[in-house]
Amino acid sequence: MNRTIKLTIAYDGTDFSGWQRQSEHRSVQEEIEKALAKMHGHAVNLLGSGRTDTGVHARGQVASFITDIVHISPERFETALNSLMPHDIRIMEAKEVRADFHPRFDARSRSYRYFMSTAKTPLPSGRKYEWHLFHSPNIALLNSMAACLIGEHDFSTFSSSQDQSQSMQRYIQNASFFMQGDQLVFQITGNAFLWRMVRSLVGTMIVFERRGKTRDDFNNAFLACDRNRAGPTAPSLGLFLWAIDFYDEDVKAESL
Amino acid sequence: MNRTIKLTIAYDGTDFSGWQRQSEHRSVQEEIEKALAKMHGHAVNLLGSGRTDTGVHARGQVASFITDIVHISPERFETALNSLMPHDIRIMEAKEVRADFHPRFDARSRSYRYFMSTAKTPLPSGRKYEWHLFHSPNIALLNSMAACLIGEHDFSTFSSSQDQSQSMQRYIQNASFFMQGDQLVFQITGNAFLWRMVRSLVGTMIVFERRGKTRDDFNNAFLACDRNRAGPTAPSLGLFLWAIDFYDEDVKAESL
Repeated sequence: MNRTIKLTIAYDGTDFSGWQRQSEHRSVQEEIEKALAKMHGHAVNLLGSGRTDTGVHARGQVASFITDIVHISPERFETALNSLMPHDIRIMEAKEVRADFHPRFDARSRSYRYFMSTAKTPLPSGRKYEWHLFHSPNIALLNSMAACLIGEHDFSTFSSSQDQSQSMQRYIQNASFFMQGDQLVFQITGNAFLWRMVRSLVGTMIVFERRGKTRDDFNNAFLACDRNRAGPTAPSLGLFLWAIDFYDEDVKAESL
Repeated sequence: MNRTIKLTIAYDGTDFSGWQRQSEHRSVQEEIEKALAKMHGHAVNLLGSGRTDTGVHARGQVASFITDIVHISPERFETALNSLMPHDIRIMEAKEVRADFHPRFDARSRSYRYFMSTAKTPLPSGRKYEWHLFHSPNIALLNSMAACLIGEHDFSTFSSSQDQSQSMQRYIQNASFFMQGDQLVFQITGNAFLWRMVRSLVGTMIVFERRGKTRDDFNNAFLACDRNRAGPTAPSLGLFLWAIDFYDEDVKAESL
């Protein structure tokens, strides 16, 4: 009997052209599908929860596949896949879920974190995982800007011209900045995000703060629903897809 | 008038064959000397505080050079060198010191830290900077072993056959383990260290703990002064040269 397996995946996005399989560039999806094909002896299709761009990292990306392997436990997929994959991708968890689980449509919320360094000279070991700010920002001001995002809003100001989404409305549950050592972290949770929205938000808030603009200047740009009012897009290297929460994903008791 | 400049240097050791200049492999010393030569228009010799091996990182390596550039402040060397160097080396501080400062002979103590992950599956972003332990060690037992090291002792057990040191006596000021999130950190400070001594210490303590040996088993191996009693050498990727302290390094008031 076929089983549906949900994978929670971490990766270092540095050497990937993003999540999505592409013919000419290295992708996370392709690397995992290659390992799945080795395990199964035939091609296995991996369904992702959402794409990440070139250079964006993940701590809790989610994907699922249907397997005809019945003799091993879901947990063993974790060990087996990790032994077959390059070290810049790790399966953090493998779990059997209900047969019709869909990692994209069943996602209740997605969380991202964006890491920045406020050190004068950041350590080289962080250079691929944090954006170096050349100043120490006013965290209270940044948090007053972030508070504008909470709730249901039109995020057109922070969209990209190539975005094909039908609606620009998104619901944000929480968004805030906090310090962690000399790192500044922006964390945001919402039902879904426009393409490059988090990086556009971070770039705009950081640049508005640095240029002496106020919370109202930021909110006015936000409410204008005009891409030309946004600041620059923050670099991909600071962004981590942090976690995805799901509506009921568990296998029903009667089917076990 | 010539000035002596002391550099505090951080590097990601992953892509270096260590600190020391070599003809065929990439070294930290060579990269900094190339940047110094560009600034000066002639070769400048960089004097290091001590070598680090292939793959070992640094947060606070120290080196010095004599400069005939008189028109820029020591702080400007920091910015200029950083702009001329690859991003896996960063100058954290540049400071003018007394003319006869010697980064090796004037060092009062050196500190190292060794990072290990106790997570089931560590995040890919840490894979070049921590040793993955496949168990959660008993920290109290590890600390009872580390306490044996404090004071002046013969460290032959933790030496390498190729070590050319005349004496195996070293003085350790402090040595202990602590947890930081799911990272286990070993920190040690001493007047000087034998070649590969820190990695041999870490490998031995971790393996003795895992094999159910006691503090006395470890101390007996230590006191035996016999290399064959040591455990394996821990991998270089977890080791950071953390800091070096100096006897009076400042330019004398009268010479300013």
